[in-house]
Amino acid sequence: MLITPGKLLASIDSPEDLRKLDRTQLPQVCNELRQYIIDNVSVYGGHFGASLGVVELTVALHYVFNTPDDQLVWDVGHQAYGHKILTGRRDNFKTNRMYGGLSGFPKRKENPYDTFGVGHSSTSISAALGMAVASALEENYQRQHIAIIGDGAMTAGLAFEGMNHAGSTDSNLLIILNDNCMAIDPNVGALKEYLTDITTSHTYNKVRDEVWNLLGKMSTFGKSAQEIVSKVETAMKGALLRQSNLFESLGLRYFGPIDGHDIDHLTAVLNDLKDIPGPKILHCITVKGKGYGPAEKDQTKWHAPGLFDKVTGEIQKKIYDTPQAPKYQDVFGHTLVELAEQNPRIVGVTPAMPSGSSLNIMMKAMPDRAFDVGIAEQHAVTFSAGMATRGEVVYCNIYSTFMQRAYDQVVHDVCIQELPVIFCLDRAGFAGADGPTHHGAYDIAYMRCLPNMIVSAPMNEQELRNLLYTAQLDKVQKGKQAFTIRYPRGQGVMPQWRTPLEEIQVGKGRKVRDGEDIAILSIGHVGNYAVEVSDTLAKEGISVAHYDMRFVKPLDEALLHEVFSKFDRVITVEDGCLPGGFGSAVLEFMADHGYTSRLQRLGIPDRIVEHGEQIELHHECGFDPEGIAKAVRAMVEQGIKVL
Amino acid sequence: MLITPGKLLASIDSPEDLRKLDRTQLPQVCNELRQYIIDNVSVYGGHFGASLGVVELTVALHYVFNTPDDQLVWDVGHQAYGHKILTGRRDNFKTNRMYGGLSGFPKRKENPYDTFGVGHSSTSISAALGMAVASALEENYQRQHIAIIGDGAMTAGLAFEGMNHAGSTDSNLLIILNDNCMAIDPNVGALKEYLTDITTSHTYNKVRDEVWNLLGKMSTFGKSAQEIVSKVETAMKGALLRQSNLFESLGLRYFGPIDGHDIDHLTAVLNDLKDIPGPKILHCITVKGKGYGPAEKDQTKWHAPGLFDKVTGEIQKKIYDTPQAPKYQDVFGHTLVELAEQNPRIVGVTPAMPSGSSLNIMMKAMPDRAFDVGIAEQHAVTFSAGMATRGEVVYCNIYSTFMQRAYDQVVHDVCIQELPVIFCLDRAGFAGADGPTHHGAYDIAYMRCLPNMIVSAPMNEQELRNLLYTAQLDKVQKGKQAFTIRYPRGQGVMPQWRTPLEEIQVGKGRKVRDGEDIAILSIGHVGNYAVEVSDTLAKEGISVAHYDMRFVKPLDEALLHEVFSKFDRVITVEDGCLPGGFGSAVLEFMADHGYTSRLQRLGIPDRIVEHGEQIELHHECGFDPEGIAKAVRAMVEQGIKVL
Repeated sequence: MLITPGKLLASIDSPEDLRKLDRTQLPQVCNELRQYIIDNVSVYGGHFGASLGVVELTVALHYVFNTPDDQLVWDVGHQAYGHKILTGRRDNFKTNRMYGGLSGFPKRKENPYDTFGVGHSSTSISAALGMAVASALEENYQRQHIAIIGDGAMTAGLAFEGMNHAGSTDSNLLIILNDNCMAIDPNVGALKEYLTDITTSHTYNKVRDEVWNLLGKMSTFGKSAQEIVSKVETAMKGALLRQSNLFESLGLRYFGPIDGHDIDHLTAVLNDLKDIPGPKILHCITVKGKGYGPAEKDQTKWHAPGLFDKVTGEIQKKIYDTPQAPKYQDVFGHTLVELAEQNPRIVGVTPAMPSGSSLNIMMKAMPDRAFDVGIAEQHAVTFSAGMATRGEVVYCNIYSTFMQRAYDQVVHDVCIQELPVIFCLDRAGFAGADGPTHHGAYDIAYMRCLPNMIVSAPMNEQELRNLLYTAQLDKVQKGKQAFTIRYPRGQGVMPQWRTPLEEIQVGKGRKVRDGEDIAILSIGHVGNYAVEVSDTLAKEGISVAHYDMRFVKPLDEALLHEVFSKFDRVITVEDGCLPGGFGSAVLEFMADHGYTSRLQRLGIPDRIVEHGEQIELHHECGFDPEGIAKAVRAMVEQGIKVL
Repeated sequence: MLITPGKLLASIDSPEDLRKLDRTQLPQVCNELRQYIIDNVSVYGGHFGASLGVVELTVALHYVFNTPDDQLVWDVGHQAYGHKILTGRRDNFKTNRMYGGLSGFPKRKENPYDTFGVGHSSTSISAALGMAVASALEENYQRQHIAIIGDGAMTAGLAFEGMNHAGSTDSNLLIILNDNCMAIDPNVGALKEYLTDITTSHTYNKVRDEVWNLLGKMSTFGKSAQEIVSKVETAMKGALLRQSNLFESLGLRYFGPIDGHDIDHLTAVLNDLKDIPGPKILHCITVKGKGYGPAEKDQTKWHAPGLFDKVTGEIQKKIYDTPQAPKYQDVFGHTLVELAEQNPRIVGVTPAMPSGSSLNIMMKAMPDRAFDVGIAEQHAVTFSAGMATRGEVVYCNIYSTFMQRAYDQVVHDVCIQELPVIFCLDRAGFAGADGPTHHGAYDIAYMRCLPNMIVSAPMNEQELRNLLYTAQLDKVQKGKQAFTIRYPRGQGVMPQWRTPLEEIQVGKGRKVRDGEDIAILSIGHVGNYAVEVSDTLAKEGISVAHYDMRFVKPLDEALLHEVFSKFDRVITVEDGCLPGGFGSAVLEFMADHGYTSRLQRLGIPDRIVEHGEQIELHHECGFDPEGIAKAVRAMVEQGIKVL
């Protein structure tokens, strides 16, 4: 589909072109940019509301600052579509998030205007401060360094750490707080309330009213009293909105709040701020989804709506003739409520991902027992640990890639303390279109090296339900081990997924299929590929045995003894990194028990794999059905006989 | 040595005994407790200043609160000696930090008063909040939950995340901010300046003075003016010190600052706070090392001074007849300055460990190029990444165990972005007396699974110097890979350590000794054990070949082909966890290349290993010289011949 940019936008091949325009033309640029984003996302998909919310900011920043020498650092980055379109990627933007196409996030390799790669939140202040300090070391005091960060991202500890450092330096850093009261779901926490408070100036107004009342009573003073009032007000306003502002407390000069959609005012303010040295913060109020009615109204739904009819605002839903398998996340969400109805000690925790994890189902059903703690993975885990010390059975649901941010808390606050917290790692394995920042590639490796840790992955919905059920059983909780359940983004394979809940013995795998020539050991959802492959190969006369190991840790040693006693050719399949992964665990078992079968490991190779559909990436890495079949054939043809 | 507690202290076997005393006796309890800590630490060693600084707090907390039902959560925990002594561990305290003895930190398994195990900083708010929420779920609204956290620990993002959540709840949480302006080194950052500011009330005083000046000029008003001034002052004080206080901004009721050494006032205030519902913070000013002159004067030195003469304040120094090998950290510290003198792009970063990492040497020599960012490991890494985007050559020095807290930043901000940041992981392997929270057990596993990551470990000082030299070479930096250099706590083996700096080819190991019967592959300092063992075994007629692999990643494949072509018996030795570790990487190489030699992996087993001297722990885990020799003998005796 041909998407035509507006006339002005069509003339902007780089920010230099933008900067040649007159200020009065900028509203039109904003309109055209907004329309171009709507046109594109409606037919090609992607993140939506966030970029609409920063159209004016994006235009103003590139207009006022001398990018790319001045350093723009976008936080999270799903709001950077406008930035991409203005920086030479307009016509290529239709490839956004597609295999081989543009990344959905800023990416250093893609473009010199992308100063810092991103995808996770809250890194921008630290990164921009690093750049600012480097500029100072070069004795370049002109270069500007601007971090654009949302109020949601501001709740993560990393952002606070960055401010704490920045505020004690004289670095040339401008933080733009893009305050729209939203993460993907509505933002939560005390900081959010504070931002609302200072925006509406409650505190200031309250104190002013109090003083006014005091002084007003002394009406006999006449004009002088009014003068006093006015001067006291000024002093207090200075004190309250400057020195005692939270950001001022942290050594950052605070400006705002201003309307983030007033392009005139924005450019004027940004121009002024260029001349104010030292670390500072500009508080901009924006509306997520701005300029597109339905997106303004339901901001969570329109965070990344999929394809839609831009005229009617109707989001396309695929229509299927047959019942479809549910998403794994929904199986988690519904099953957790089922379990919590039976077990009063069950609670749920998510760091800012109620809808992404489907914990919103429990938040609705049992609001007292399900907690959204904001973008704060570290806190999510330690908070879970605290609850576990008091006997709560905690399901802490964090995307695999975001769990990296709570790694120390998993080690120090859970495993070392022998607390049986249940970690549900959604989006484990390749995340798909979100790309390398979001791939859950490393969790098997970084979890299985920890003591007091069970690591499991279900092959389908029934297995997920049974693992969720098993983890909360008294006898399992009494084992005092953390229990990790990893599962991928997207759908399972069982349209009839509400199977009875059954215990799985911890560390017990299962034989899916008997065979003679070779064994496949799989972990997780990719086991379904092995099923498919085994069928295909059977027709070719290759007899494949298939084991769904279920647990990376503890490994089912009895099953492995069976496998390695029988097979001299074994293939492991996992949707996780090869170094230190599941296959590596199997190798350790072999070495420890003196087995010398030939083993080939299939999984995510030791390099950064870019974005694309999950199946495209599995194919690229050789563990889609085709890749597995190829590996089996090659191994069988080699006719290895070591035993 | 017999250490006798004072009369009152001798009668306190639990906080219940303490609570039977009259309030007027508490100063005496404090004196005796302080003296008992001095008596013990001077002859048995341990952390010192921190516990002295909270003697009054400790007594007051156990006096006022109904521990252990009320939950005391100590942050970091090296200040909890007084707590341990008051909670039934007085007579056993002499075993503190010794192998088999008491832990130097609160530990759940050790005692019911230790509600949360600790060692790393900044976990207490999240953990105590978790407990408070659990109490509310139990409908227990009486139970108190108290987090005691230092101003240093407050700078870490986790603490902020905890406050952001706590402040939006009505949970029964009391945060005690133990403000002594110190971490191990002096605390840094904007928050610290803010705390000093509100303590000395600069802001308030400034505004008051301003208003006073304004009103003072209107002297004609006489008495009424004074009344105005007084009332305005009250209003402003309320506003400035309450509503606009940083902690109040985050929804926490703020009390203080108060003198943390005034036991009378402390008990009174804590008693009052019991009746104030909701989340709150009490700001206590304390002096680290309080009551012991030398420790008050040089707080960093007396953080953990080792043994000392309590009368003279003289810290014992061991006297040696021969020159001693330096600490690895000092080799790092001095070598970095040497390198930075040659290479102007070199900078150094430490999160609050200038003296612990010896980066203080560079901070003194080149204050503009060495950064202490406070307890903020996440920020340390992303800040380093930001500098690296601008071409700085960054040495980011973080203890192995603390690097767990910056794991996502290593993945997301460094490896994915192909930034050649150099990570120096001090205290890798067993940390010794600090125990499981501080063991650097997992870094090989969690680092080697990442793409764009070099993982190395020097066997001695010369190797460390050469790795440090190599990492900053242009051609290595241009490889755009992160470069991890891990080394242990304590001394190396080379008294003459200032060897010439020489490049090591990345991924190149070295043969230390030729042999015929068996090969040992070692990584890092424990290679010196292999040297010792090889000598011993040679006398027994066992010919051991020894390879110092230097790199876990990339592995020296040429060397490994040599090894596995020649030897059918191989032992790997590492001071790191066995699952996913160095030995596991060697197994992956073997599987990928079809080698079937018998391989035994020695290293840290898959369980929590407690505290003790490093060599005691190596012995326990079977990779001290004795353990390695035993493994070699067993393997040789088995006469395995697989090839």
